[in-house]
Parts: sequence; C-alpha cells; structure tokens
Amino acid sequence: METVSENASHGGVQGVYRHRSEACACDMTFAVYLPPQAQQGRVPVVWYLSGLTCTHENAMTKAALQGHAALHGVAVIYPDTSPRGEGVADDDAYDLGQGAGFYVNATEAPWAPHFRMYDYVVEELPGLVGANFAIDMERQGVTGHSMGGHGALTIAMRNPDRFRSVSAFAPIAHPSTSDWGRKQLAAYLGEDREGWKGHDACLLLAERGWHSDLLIDQGASDQFIDLLKPESLAAALAATRTPSVFRMQPGYDHSYFFVETFGGDHIAWHAERLGV
Amino acid sequence: METVSENASHGGVQGVYRHRSEACACDMTFAVYLPPQAQQGRVPVVWYLSGLTCTHENAMTKAALQGHAALHGVAVIYPDTSPRGEGVADDDAYDLGQGAGFYVNATEAPWAPHFRMYDYVVEELPGLVGANFAIDMERQGVTGHSMGGHGALTIAMRNPDRFRSVSAFAPIAHPSTSDWGRKQLAAYLGEDREGWKGHDACLLLAERGWHSDLLIDQGASDQFIDLLKPESLAAALAATRTPSVFRMQPGYDHSYFFVETFGGDHIAWHAERLGV
Repeated sequence: METVSENASHGGVQGVYRHRSEACACDMTFAVYLPPQAQQGRVPVVWYLSGLTCTHENAMTKAALQGHAALHGVAVIYPDTSPRGEGVADDDAYDLGQGAGFYVNATEAPWAPHFRMYDYVVEELPGLVGANFAIDMERQGVTGHSMGGHGALTIAMRNPDRFRSVSAFAPIAHPSTSDWGRKQLAAYLGEDREGWKGHDACLLLAERGWHSDLLIDQGASDQFIDLLKPESLAAALAATRTPSVFRMQPGYDHSYFFVETFGGDHIAWHAERLGV
Repeated sequence: METVSENASHGGVQGVYRHRSEACACDMTFAVYLPPQAQQGRVPVVWYLSGLTCTHENAMTKAALQGHAALHGVAVIYPDTSPRGEGVADDDAYDLGQGAGFYVNATEAPWAPHFRMYDYVVEELPGLVGANFAIDMERQGVTGHSMGGHGALTIAMRNPDRFRSVSAFAPIAHPSTSDWGRKQLAAYLGEDREGWKGHDACLLLAERGWHSDLLIDQGASDQFIDLLKPESLAAALAATRTPSVFRMQPGYDHSYFFVETFGGDHIAWHAERLGV
C-alpha cells in the first residue's frame, strides 16, 4: 500500500492511498479520514460509497464530513467507484464502465475480469484498512450517495453481521425498474433478472429486511429523482414496517451541496449506532 | 447579470452568476451564498478572496463555509481571481496572468486592459451584489486564502470605512519581498517599488494600521510557508501593537483541508464583528 497524500484536517488526517487490488485486478485508490481520536486507539468507521462518475476524491473534498467525523470520533473511508486504468473495459456512456461499477461482481464480458466492486468493498478493502489503520472493524456503518446509496443499502442488507448502521443520500433505490440500473445490471450480470435481485434495495428489503433502522435523505428538487425511485423505497420501508426516517428535503437537488448540508446528520446518526 | 446555477445549501442558496465587468472589460463569474435569514431581510456579508489558480468555484465547493454562514446568518461572496477569456492576456506560469490577478489594477502592458481586480472587488462587484441580493453593504467583512489573504488584508486596510472585519488563511503577507509577489507586482505595476507599497500587507500595516482586530491562521507544515512570510506579518502585528490573533497551526498545510478546518472559526469571528 502506497501513500498518495496525507493532509491534516480537523485535528486528524485525510489520507489517500493506492494498492494493488486482487478483486479488481488493477491498482485502486481510496481515501481514509482518521479523526484525532484514532491516535489513542481504534475508532468506528463509516464507509462512504460515491455515485456515478466519482472517484475517491469527490466526497473527500466536497462533502465536508471530516469535521463531523472528528467531533464524533469516527473514521470515514471513501472507496473509488470502479476499477480503472489501461486494460480495464470502459464505455462511452458516463453511467457504464469506469466510474460506474454499481457495487456488483460482473459475470459478463467485457466486464468480468475487473468489475468486482462488491467483493472489493465487502471483502478486500475492509481487510486492508483493518490491517493498516486504527479502525475497529467490529463497528462499521455504511452510507453513500446516488449509485453509492444503492451500494450502501444493498451491501448492508446482504451483510447484516458486518454493518451496524446504514443510511443513504438520494440512493438509486430500485435499479431493476430504472434506466439507472437495468442497463448496468444487464451489462454486468446478464439479462436474467434473477441475478439482479441481490442488487436492488427495494427487493432486498422485502426479502431480507434490515436488523436496525435506516436514515434516507432525498432532495425534492433532485433533477434525477425519477431515476432514483424514492417512492418505491418509501413504500417498501413502510410496507415492511422497517424502523426508518425518510426525509424528503424541499428545494434540494442531487449535488454535493445537498450531501454536504445533511452530512453532519448522517455522521451523528451512525456515531450513535456505532456506540460513540 | 445571468444566473449560471443555484443550489440549495443549508436552507439557503448557493448561486453562481455571470456578468459583463466594466472594470475587467470581460465577462466575470462569481458565487454568492445567501443564508436562509436573507429571506427575511438584508444580511451582513463576508467576502472570500481565493488564491492562485482558483476560480469562484474552488472555495465554494471545498471550504464548506455555507453551514457556518447559515448558522450565523451571513452571506459569503466568492469572486474569481482574475479576468479570463479570449483576448485577455495570460502567461504560461501558474502564478501570473489568468488565475493570478493579485487584486491590483495593472498599469503595465499587456495586463492593463483587463487586470483591474482591485477595482473589480472594491468597487464594481459590491455595487452589483448590493443591487441584486439581500445583502447589507453597511456590514462587510473580508477574508481570503494565500493570494486571497493578501487581497483581503490589503483591500481591508486601504478601505477601512468599507470593511468592519478582516481575517486571512495563510496569506501572502509581504509580497514585495517574496517570489510570490515581486514578479507579479513588477509585471502588473512596473518596476518602481513605490507603487507596490499599497499592495503589501506588512507595509500597509506599518503605514496605516487597522481600526479593529485581525485573525490569521497559518499552517506550520504549509509547503509554501517560505513564500508567505508569516514571520513578517507576525512581527508587524506585534510591532504595531495591532489587536490580533495569529495562530500557527501545527500539522496543517496549504490545502483546502486547512481552510475547511478553520473556516467555521473565521465565519463566527466575522459574524461577531458584523453584529450578528
């Protein structure tokens, strides 16, 4: 693991690191914010999964989670959103290929050799950060924005023993019924919709439920709201009687100004559930 | 004036606007954050002047001042750092020409026709925002980072009736003795150093003083610290007995992670002095 950069932030360290990923068969870059409390011992962690077109960097520089993380004493990890580099398949569309991994393990050509973001986020990267940073892997939460909200919800529900808490900002909530989802799940997983069910938050919620509560923020003026299907998620949360807070925020759009506005609420919410 | 974008942020609006500048003889873009309190009446304002290579956008997306501005009920204005566009002179160096206006009125070729950032920030843009936004121009403060810290300190000291409060993040404090300053002041203002005196915070402080107090944050691990001359500013503040808080912050560098960490302190400090 190679250190790309480390910057002081709110008494802690915002670092960027690069490593050879076995899951993705390429070099991967990720960011970790360690709060000042990590100098005294292992701290809980909130994973932040990013949306379409993003790298590890967007939320790290725009979401301003560091101050809240320092206040509560939690680490934040920002993975990349796909494999990258020469030899890694890509597509001209912004919403397929590099920058658009959708947090699945691709089974189809040309994606299968590298696009294994599910394994990368669920297995490989936790092992790496647990071994290299003062992070308590027994206390993990996960959040994300847009495609990353999809990742957060689906990964949490598939791994309830791993994650104590989950929240999302404007998640792609029902991808198997959306143009943000059908194209990508078909490309990565094939046309058989049976294989999509494990990667659709609404379907997973109905099938498996969630052991704790959820926090969802959605901007009412989100320019992509028709692709996100918040009404399906709200209905599924209500139908399954899942303890949850679903906030339809008037005036807010899909941008980082939205995420940044409510980021403090999410970090506080996770911190409370992670025992800090 | 044309609206480029408006995004909800912390209950207020983060807007970006474009207009034809008479001072700079080109189109100029600037950003304004209006807190929710501006819906009820005019609010005080803090000008944020940015550093080398920046546009109106960098601090708007990376400094996370909006939440603090909403908490205290102040607006924040982010001007660009130079004229731009076809027909505007430029230089291959990152620290001269476009993105590096140094907040002066150029008198020398090829800069004089457009590089009038002093007049733009001191005269033209205040008139425009006062006429178009719910901002109380009787209550103005100014801050900035690096070259923008230089701009904040020099513009405030030259216009004490205009500004009630001034602070700076890692300012270029003594440009007439630095490689961040001598080249630019010579290019824009000519070789006669008499003309530089009005654009050097340390010299202005000795000559004119400041009617109130100052807040300066400087990272001790700033990679450009030798160019900034914080020791000259600290000495000048002490020698002139100017009420001030000069904080040498251990571990912090020159990045927006530094600005973002201490941005809340600066907004609170200005708000207190602007009577909110």
